Amino acid sequence: MAMTSTENRRVVLASRPEGEPRPENFRLETVPRPEPGDGQVLLRTLWLSLDPYMRGRMSEAKSYAKPVPVGGPMEGGTVSEVVLSRSDRFRPGDVVLAHGGWQDYAVADARGLRQLDPEAAPIQTALGILGMPGMTAYTGLANIGQPKAGETLVVSAASGAVGSAVGQIGRIRGCRTVGVAGGPEKCRYLIEELGFDAAIDHRAPDLPERLREACPNGIDIYFENVGGEVWTAVFPLLNDFARVPVCGRIAHYSDTAPPPGPDRTVQLMAAILTRRLRLQGFIVSDFAAQQGDFLREMAGWIRDGQVRYREDVVEGLERAPEAFMGLLKGRNFGKLLVKVAERSAS
Amino acid sequence: MAMTSTENRRVVLASRPEGEPRPENFRLETVPRPEPGDGQVLLRTLWLSLDPYMRGRMSEAKSYAKPVPVGGPMEGGTVSEVVLSRSDRFRPGDVVLAHGGWQDYAVADARGLRQLDPEAAPIQTALGILGMPGMTAYTGLANIGQPKAGETLVVSAASGAVGSAVGQIGRIRGCRTVGVAGGPEKCRYLIEELGFDAAIDHRAPDLPERLREACPNGIDIYFENVGGEVWTAVFPLLNDFARVPVCGRIAHYSDTAPPPGPDRTVQLMAAILTRRLRLQGFIVSDFAAQQGDFLREMAGWIRDGQVRYREDVVEGLERAPEAFMGLLKGRNFGKLLVKVAERSAS
Repeated sequence: MAMTSTENRRVVLASRPEGEPRPENFRLETVPRPEPGDGQVLLRTLWLSLDPYMRGRMSEAKSYAKPVPVGGPMEGGTVSEVVLSRSDRFRPGDVVLAHGGWQDYAVADARGLRQLDPEAAPIQTALGILGMPGMTAYTGLANIGQPKAGETLVVSAASGAVGSAVGQIGRIRGCRTVGVAGGPEKCRYLIEELGFDAAIDHRAPDLPERLREACPNGIDIYFENVGGEVWTAVFPLLNDFARVPVCGRIAHYSDTAPPPGPDRTVQLMAAILTRRLRLQGFIVSDFAAQQGDFLREMAGWIRDGQVRYREDVVEGLERAPEAFMGLLKGRNFGKLLVKVAERSAS
Repeated sequence: MAMTSTENRRVVLASRPEGEPRPENFRLETVPRPEPGDGQVLLRTLWLSLDPYMRGRMSEAKSYAKPVPVGGPMEGGTVSEVVLSRSDRFRPGDVVLAHGGWQDYAVADARGLRQLDPEAAPIQTALGILGMPGMTAYTGLANIGQPKAGETLVVSAASGAVGSAVGQIGRIRGCRTVGVAGGPEKCRYLIEELGFDAAIDHRAPDLPERLREACPNGIDIYFENVGGEVWTAVFPLLNDFARVPVCGRIAHYSDTAPPPGPDRTVQLMAAILTRRLRLQGFIVSDFAAQQGDFLREMAGWIRDGQVRYREDVVEGLERAPEAFMGLLKGRNFGKLLVKVAERSAS
């Protein structure tokens, strides 16, 4: 067994960021390890997932989830190991999917945990391709994107955890898939490793022209993760009846003021009408009932080699803030994970 | 039989409007009556429908239909009478739904016409509650609005041909229905005649506050006919998972430049994501397959007295431009129709 400590290191929200998060918005502190009550388990974090949505939790603005309180531990999905159990559902050594947060230890109700089978897949994939990001891609594309063979699908942040799954599922559904990503290395990866039909560097000064060339038949589905200049380039290319699943807007998460005019809302609403566009936001929990389908289908695609994934692993809880700030700037390459502890030898 | 003429009066597009259409953009001219070819009929216009979409046809901007050419007759749906038939589908005296345009006579392929039964309903209802506007309301609300009992439905241009049907169908579906219309007379009509739960004058200086008071549980469906200040008032009240069928934007049809900043697109896309809104444009022909359901259900509601309609009738083709310009300013009260000729005694 790995050593268990009576102390708990955790990263708390020290202050709310103005604009981009900075190191002083986070604080690493050590507190006593919590104790589980009846029906609860004590969990040790093995893997912590870092995801763009966490930027929203740092702000007080109304969103689909409550903000993290100042002084409270940052929230996040984890793959964790049961250390102590006061529930007959789990035993020490069990590996579970949890919302442990940015800390070494967490207490959780046994009912809220999903047990993982370490023999079936690498456990950290429950935070990536077989977890929230993969299911976000799967459900958003199926329910809102509604891909049909021969259509053109564009996805932004295409080498990221969600985007890379969107593109590959689109390819499986018979779409022409075009990814937008940051830098030549990511673009090469999209084409050579993931089978995208085209990849475009969003830093290219002629992004609109390159996107137009990559989409000779226009765009039928735009899976929106980014906003900003990518959206501006995509918008004129949207075909009649195009669908836009709005999943993320990472270019704007640290905006401090609305951009200058003119007000393009009127132009957007005009296009929605005349081109009969469908823009729809969603979060993965809206489609929770589809988890069974997702897990079955995605596990099959991974087994067959039809879907690949890439992980960007940072070692050590103390590096989570730096890694998260890098994520918001697109510095990660693949699903960003913090390896917090080794699994106990069982 | 009413007299038939060898001349054809028609209203042509004299020039494309800059901003709001003006009298000089139209011209009434007299040309020889057209002659039907094989498989065609000669139609005399009895009723001409005037609808907001016609403003789009006057401009060259890309839309879902081609613009009317300068010098060409204005397009429009008509209820017409067959005068001469070179098809075995129709006989003189038959009444049909056609796209005869703003003119006394038109030639049409017999295949494109739907015969109307003058005994079943007043023939001009095929241009209103039992025609394009009614079906626009029915299909947009069903397919995009997806009303559920207990939800709050807001519709703009609520006393108009589309809006009045939207509100009444919403009431039948069990929604709280709130109409936005121009002036106290129309608002009174919505509540007293059509059974809306609340009606708000869009000219009220405190429109946002009044709308908020009328929607204590927020807005689940906003059927968009208008844009402008109504949209601005509706937007903050949209609930999570709200649906916005985008059917029209009459406040903007004569815009000559985009409004000043800030650019609220970013705010809109943020709300689409965090509130999981669905904004979707449509035109009635997108749902052509549902015409049978529409006609059956709507005819039943009219028969039962569950749906009422109001017509605003202008006499004489020569008055069509003036009536149309008034429509764009909201001066009509109910479905705007031009009575062009009497039906022949049969």
